[in-house]
Amino acid sequence: MTGPFGAATAVNPNGGGTYTAEILPGWDIAGNANGGYLLAIAARALLDATGRPDPVTVTGHYLAPGKPGPVDISTDVVKQGKRFATGRAGLTAGGRPLLSVLGTFGDLAEDHGTLLVDGSPPDLPPIESCVLVVATDTFPPPFMGKVELHLHPDDVGFAVGERSGIARVRGWFQLLENEPIDTVALLCALDAFPPTIFNTNLPIAWTPTVELTCHLRTRPVPGPLRCQFTTRFVTGGFLEEDGEVWDMQGRLVAQSRQLALVPRA
Amino acid sequence: MTGPFGAATAVNPNGGGTYTAEILPGWDIAGNANGGYLLAIAARALLDATGRPDPVTVTGHYLAPGKPGPVDISTDVVKQGKRFATGRAGLTAGGRPLLSVLGTFGDLAEDHGTLLVDGSPPDLPPIESCVLVVATDTFPPPFMGKVELHLHPDDVGFAVGERSGIARVRGWFQLLENEPIDTVALLCALDAFPPTIFNTNLPIAWTPTVELTCHLRTRPVPGPLRCQFTTRFVTGGFLEEDGEVWDMQGRLVAQSRQLALVPRA
Repeated sequence: MTGPFGAATAVNPNGGGTYTAEILPGWDIAGNANGGYLLAIAARALLDATGRPDPVTVTGHYLAPGKPGPVDISTDVVKQGKRFATGRAGLTAGGRPLLSVLGTFGDLAEDHGTLLVDGSPPDLPPIESCVLVVATDTFPPPFMGKVELHLHPDDVGFAVGERSGIARVRGWFQLLENEPIDTVALLCALDAFPPTIFNTNLPIAWTPTVELTCHLRTRPVPGPLRCQFTTRFVTGGFLEEDGEVWDMQGRLVAQSRQLALVPRA
Repeated sequence: MTGPFGAATAVNPNGGGTYTAEILPGWDIAGNANGGYLLAIAARALLDATGRPDPVTVTGHYLAPGKPGPVDISTDVVKQGKRFATGRAGLTAGGRPLLSVLGTFGDLAEDHGTLLVDGSPPDLPPIESCVLVVATDTFPPPFMGKVELHLHPDDVGFAVGERSGIARVRGWFQLLENEPIDTVALLCALDAFPPTIFNTNLPIAWTPTVELTCHLRTRPVPGPLRCQFTTRFVTGGFLEEDGEVWDMQGRLVAQSRQLALVPRA
């Protein structure tokens, strides 16, 4: 808890696996708290409940938009194993369910090394040559003032009506005030970027997340993260968004896939 | 419930969101029930509990191997919405947790059409030119006698010590006795194939699934399914396996990603 992200995701234990937390103002997209931010709050509760330092795989199902204010988190530990622990969390506001989470937690301090890598970090210009996203009250949304995103210049055309035609968004992720990025902050990074379909010919509108799953491989070394999000299939009323996050040592530190609803035109 | 898969995944409601079911003999890999099969049993309970016809996104965390015999399933519905319902399930045997599940369910009868497709069904020879996997007591495992897999000839070299070097497995999936493939059977298809890394230079050994997430887009039309599984990253002691399932109309009907442990040499 060394900075604004740590403070914004802090949880207070109340015994019996229950916690309280606060959705802080400013972490929203058009009034609704960012999904990765909510998942990070739930993960903090589950780390405490399981007694483990790192999320390994965490899935959240989004049930209702989160608004600034207090939230209650109930957790239960399904299994305490040797290497991993698995737990569930429910995040509610005034009794209304916002988010249901299932996750497995462990210790990612040791890097078990690389046996196969078919991929590479996204080809990003240096941060100073990328485009810093500056928050506004509307678009870009307030949440963009809580993280520091520098987007690939080729991927920001949507902001000026010149869309790339490729369902991809790439950029650098950092926390404010040089706050170190722990594995919980990776959950935030994995849902922090503008939707991939902003760069296609589909309507630019809210793409509500139904489900987000994050896989974490190892703890990132200090420094900004190179991130890439792509979408291959917009079918059946759904789209998937696949995320990759790479650290400054060129290691894949996290992957994600989310299922979202196609925005209504 | 029109055939052996329906019978093997049947659940009996006992009131209060609880169910009993039976892990049938023969659905195992080296004595442990196949993960997609277990997920399908839990999904049947959650479809009943939520009153919805189709899984939309289902995540399972695997806690202990499933052995033939009775299992108990407890469910709770987290949200009953208009379009979707979200529920959780715990599958236990003799009180021991085997599988924890979080899923969102709905109605996939209507195909909402295709807006973006960056991909195509795997390039498979006709079924009669592919290699039928025949079950044995050891390898291939008994489970292969419960589904009908025809593998791409280029992807079966591992069986005779001639591995392709590509972390990929492609093939046709069918149920026995021409049983129709419903959306619950898609969950089985998404975990039915030999591990991708059998075709690499990594040890050929059990790759225990930590977590499996399935996304379903629409109901498949009758006929065999074209399936592809790939792995891009074996790092940090983990590997992901990404699945795609396509129906005979050339539509992507389901996607999956699982996180598995690297086998110990």
